[in-house]
Amino acid sequence: MKRENFAMLCDFYELTMANGYFKKGFQNKIVYFDLFFRTIPDGGGFAIAAGLEQAIEYIKNLHFEADDIDFLRNKNIFDEEFLQYLSKFKFTGDIWAVPEGTPIFPNEPIMTIHAPIIEAQIMETYLLIAINHQSLIATKANRIVRAAEGRTVLELGSRRAQGASGAVLGARAAYIGGCNGTACVLTDQLYGVPSAGTMAHSWIQSFDSEYEAFKTFCEMYPNNTVLLVDTYNTLKSGLPNAIRAFKDVLLPMGITNCAVRLDSGDIAYLSKEARKMLDDAGLKECKIVASNSLDEFLITDLLRQGAKIDIFGVGERLITSKSNPVFGGVYKLVAIEHEDGRIEPKIKISENIIKITNPHFKKIYRFYDNVTGKALADELCLYDESLPNNDSHTIFDPNATWKRKTLTNFTAKSLQKEIFHGGKLVYKNPSVEEIRKYCLNQIDLLWDEVKRFENPHKYYVDLSQRLWDTRQELLNEKI
Amino acid sequence: MKRENFAMLCDFYELTMANGYFKKGFQNKIVYFDLFFRTIPDGGGFAIAAGLEQAIEYIKNLHFEADDIDFLRNKNIFDEEFLQYLSKFKFTGDIWAVPEGTPIFPNEPIMTIHAPIIEAQIMETYLLIAINHQSLIATKANRIVRAAEGRTVLELGSRRAQGASGAVLGARAAYIGGCNGTACVLTDQLYGVPSAGTMAHSWIQSFDSEYEAFKTFCEMYPNNTVLLVDTYNTLKSGLPNAIRAFKDVLLPMGITNCAVRLDSGDIAYLSKEARKMLDDAGLKECKIVASNSLDEFLITDLLRQGAKIDIFGVGERLITSKSNPVFGGVYKLVAIEHEDGRIEPKIKISENIIKITNPHFKKIYRFYDNVTGKALADELCLYDESLPNNDSHTIFDPNATWKRKTLTNFTAKSLQKEIFHGGKLVYKNPSVEEIRKYCLNQIDLLWDEVKRFENPHKYYVDLSQRLWDTRQELLNEKI
Repeated sequence: MKRENFAMLCDFYELTMANGYFKKGFQNKIVYFDLFFRTIPDGGGFAIAAGLEQAIEYIKNLHFEADDIDFLRNKNIFDEEFLQYLSKFKFTGDIWAVPEGTPIFPNEPIMTIHAPIIEAQIMETYLLIAINHQSLIATKANRIVRAAEGRTVLELGSRRAQGASGAVLGARAAYIGGCNGTACVLTDQLYGVPSAGTMAHSWIQSFDSEYEAFKTFCEMYPNNTVLLVDTYNTLKSGLPNAIRAFKDVLLPMGITNCAVRLDSGDIAYLSKEARKMLDDAGLKECKIVASNSLDEFLITDLLRQGAKIDIFGVGERLITSKSNPVFGGVYKLVAIEHEDGRIEPKIKISENIIKITNPHFKKIYRFYDNVTGKALADELCLYDESLPNNDSHTIFDPNATWKRKTLTNFTAKSLQKEIFHGGKLVYKNPSVEEIRKYCLNQIDLLWDEVKRFENPHKYYVDLSQRLWDTRQELLNEKI
Repeated sequence: MKRENFAMLCDFYELTMANGYFKKGFQNKIVYFDLFFRTIPDGGGFAIAAGLEQAIEYIKNLHFEADDIDFLRNKNIFDEEFLQYLSKFKFTGDIWAVPEGTPIFPNEPIMTIHAPIIEAQIMETYLLIAINHQSLIATKANRIVRAAEGRTVLELGSRRAQGASGAVLGARAAYIGGCNGTACVLTDQLYGVPSAGTMAHSWIQSFDSEYEAFKTFCEMYPNNTVLLVDTYNTLKSGLPNAIRAFKDVLLPMGITNCAVRLDSGDIAYLSKEARKMLDDAGLKECKIVASNSLDEFLITDLLRQGAKIDIFGVGERLITSKSNPVFGGVYKLVAIEHEDGRIEPKIKISENIIKITNPHFKKIYRFYDNVTGKALADELCLYDESLPNNDSHTIFDPNATWKRKTLTNFTAKSLQKEIFHGGKLVYKNPSVEEIRKYCLNQIDLLWDEVKRFENPHKYYVDLSQRLWDTRQELLNEKI
C-alpha cells in the first residue's frame, strides 16, 4: 500500500465501461451521479456523514501514471486512444456534498457528481470507500458515546481494524462521532486527534513484580498514570499493588488524579469492588477505566447495573462497527445533461423496491423549527426549486402520499455545499476538531426520539411534489 | 494515508512503555512475544494465516523520521535520549512465523518475535493489523468458496471495505482463501490477483435503451460479455434484451461463451427462470452470475433450492467478514531472556480463563497420518524439544489431561519458518498464486469434520508435557 494516488483503486468494470463510453463517443456526455445510502446501521435513527476530506484528497491527486497505463495496455482489451486519454485524465467537473459531521438519512445524496461520464464513473469505488467507511465508524462512535452518558470514551481498536486505513481513518471518524481521543499515534499526527494510552500487560510482565512495575510507571508518568490491574489477579494483587504504588509515589507528590484499568473479568462487579477499595484507601479521585469488547449495548448494561466506571476504552466493536460492519452507500446515475442544457432524469428500478433510485439532479433542504431549534424533516427537491419560505410548507410521505404535514414558522437550510467547481476545489476542509464540534451540535438539534437505540422515530425525508411526479412518470414509463 | 513507513501507526502506550523501558535501562532486555488468536471466526473449525508479506514490508521499512521525532518531542513526556534512540531505531531481532495460507488454530503462535523489548513492543499494533485483517478475510473467503462447491467465486466488495487497505489487501486475502478473482484493479496491479468485471447499471442508463446498451457491450467485448439484466425488469426486459443482443451480435461470430448477471430480487427463482429462457433460446452455454449480499449461508441455501448459478459475485459480506468482522489476534510477552542466556517463561493470567497465555519460547508441530496424509493434531512444545519421531507419540488435551491419544505411523512438521535473523530478512515471500495453491492443498489435508460449518470437530492443539508443566508451575506460583 504505497500510493498517494488511488486512481487504480477502482473496480475493473469502471475501466471497461469507460473504454466503452470512449469508443462510443460519450466522452463529453455530462451526467449526474448521486452517492447515497439506504439503511441506517444498527437500526438507528440517523447516520453521520464522514470521509469527505479523504474523498477530496483522492480527487485532487487523481491521475494515471505511466506504469498504470502499461499495466492496462497489457490486458489487451483497452483501445490505445482510450489509454492516451487516461494518461491525461483529471477531474474537470462539479461536486456538491453534505459536510462531514452532518446527521444524514437514507436516500439523501451525500455527494452529487456532475461531470463527463468517464470521470464520474472511474471515481465510483474510491468515493464509496471513503464515505462508507468513515460514515460507518462515526455513526457507531456516536451511538457508543451516547450510551456512555457523558463519560469519556477512548478509541483503542487499531489492532483489530480491517487494515491500516481502517485503523487510522477509523480513529478520525470515531473522534468526529464524539469519542474523546484515540490510542492511534498516526491519527494524532495526521489529523490532530488527541492520542493517549498507558501500559500493556507486557509492561508488568517485564518487571520482577507487579508492584515494581506500577511504582516505576508512577515515578515516570506521575501526571498520566493509568495502571492495568488484571495481569495476575485484579482484586487480590492488581488493585492492592496499584493502591500501594499510588500511596508510595503519587500522594506524597500531592497527585490524586490517577486511574486504574480493568480489562477482563466481570467488569460490573470488579468496578464496584475497585471503587470501594480505592475509596477506602482515600483515593476518591482515582478514576476507573474499563475496556474489553465494549459497545453501546454493553455500556448501557454496565451503567444499568450501577458499574463504577469513569472512562470507557472501546476497541474492536467500534473500529469495525462489529454489530453492523457495512455502511451500504451506493453510487447511481440520476440524470444526463444534453448538449442543449436540458437535464434528463434517469431511474434504476430493480425487483427490490428499496433499490429503486430517486432520479434527477437534486437538493436537500432541512427544516428547523424556529421555536425549539430542532430539525423537523428533510425534503429532497429538484435542483431548480427555490428554498421554501418560512410561512407555510406542506410535506408528504413519498410512500404514503396521504400522510401530509404543514410546517409553519421554520427555517430551511440547504444541506449540500459546493466542493469542486469546474475541476477546482472551492471548499476548505474544516479541522477535525471543528467537524466534531459541528457534529455534536447538529445531533443536539435532533429530537430524542430519533436518537434512541430501540425503535427510533423515523425522521421524515420527503420528496417535493415535482420530484415525486418526476419519479412517478419514470416508473410508469419503464414498468 | 500517505506513508510507506508505518512506524507511527502504533498505540500511544507502546511509546510510553518504550520510553519507560529506556529510562529503566531495559533497552537491551531481550524478550519473546507471541502473536496468536483465541477464537475461530464464525464458529468454524480452522482459520487461515495471512498478512505476513505486509508484516515483513512494515518491518523492513520501520524507522522514525525527523518530523515523527518532532511530533513526539512536542508531547513533552518523552526523554530526549529516548527520542535520539528512536531516531536511529530499526529492527535487529529474530522472527519466526507460520507461512501465509496455512490452516491455523487458537493459541498457536502465528508469529514469534525475539528482540530487545522496545523493538518488540513498538511493532505490536501494526503486526496485529496485518495478520488480523488478512487472516480474517482469507478465512471468510474459504468458507464462501467451500459453500460454492466448485463454482467460481469473485470478490467484488471494494466499495464496502473499511478503508483503502481493507479493499486492496482484503482482495489479496480473499484470493489466498480460494476466490478466483477480484474486481479490484489495484490488487491485480500490486499482487497479480486476476481482476475482472463488466458493467454497472449506469452503463445501461447512459443509453437510450437497454437493448442498445447490451448490443454495444457485446460488440465491444465479445469475448468477455456479462450483461447486467436487472436495471428495469429482469424477466420482462433484461433477459429478453440480453438474449436478443447475444443472438444479434455474438452467435453470428460463433461465440456462445457469454453470461448474464442477476443483482436483485429472488435470485433462486430468477436464476431458474433465466436458465429456462436462455436454454429455450439455444444459449445453453450462457452462464448465470449472481450477486447481492451473498455469503456462505446464502450460497448454501441457494444451492439447496436448486438455483441455477454458475458464478457467485461476493461483496460486502466477504470484504468485511460481515457475520464476524473481528479476528481477535493478540500479542503477548511469553518469555524474557537473561544475560546468561537463560530464558524465563512469563504468563498473563486474567480473570477470563480463555485469556490465560501459554508461556515460553515455543514451536508448533503438526502431525500428519502417513496412510491418509491427513493432519491429525498439532502440538505446542518448548523451543528446545526435538521433533517427535514417528514410532509413537502420546498427546493429551491440556484442559482435560486424562484425554490421551497415542499417535503412530505419522510425520511431524514444524509449522513456523524463520523470517528475520538478527534484523535481516532471511525469507522469500512466495507469490500470491503460490500461497493460494499451498493454502488449498493444506486445507485438503484437514478432515471434512473440521471443515463443516455447523459444530465442526475441534482439531486438537495440545501442549507437550514440558510446556504443560511449565504453565502449571507459573499458574500455581501466581494465583
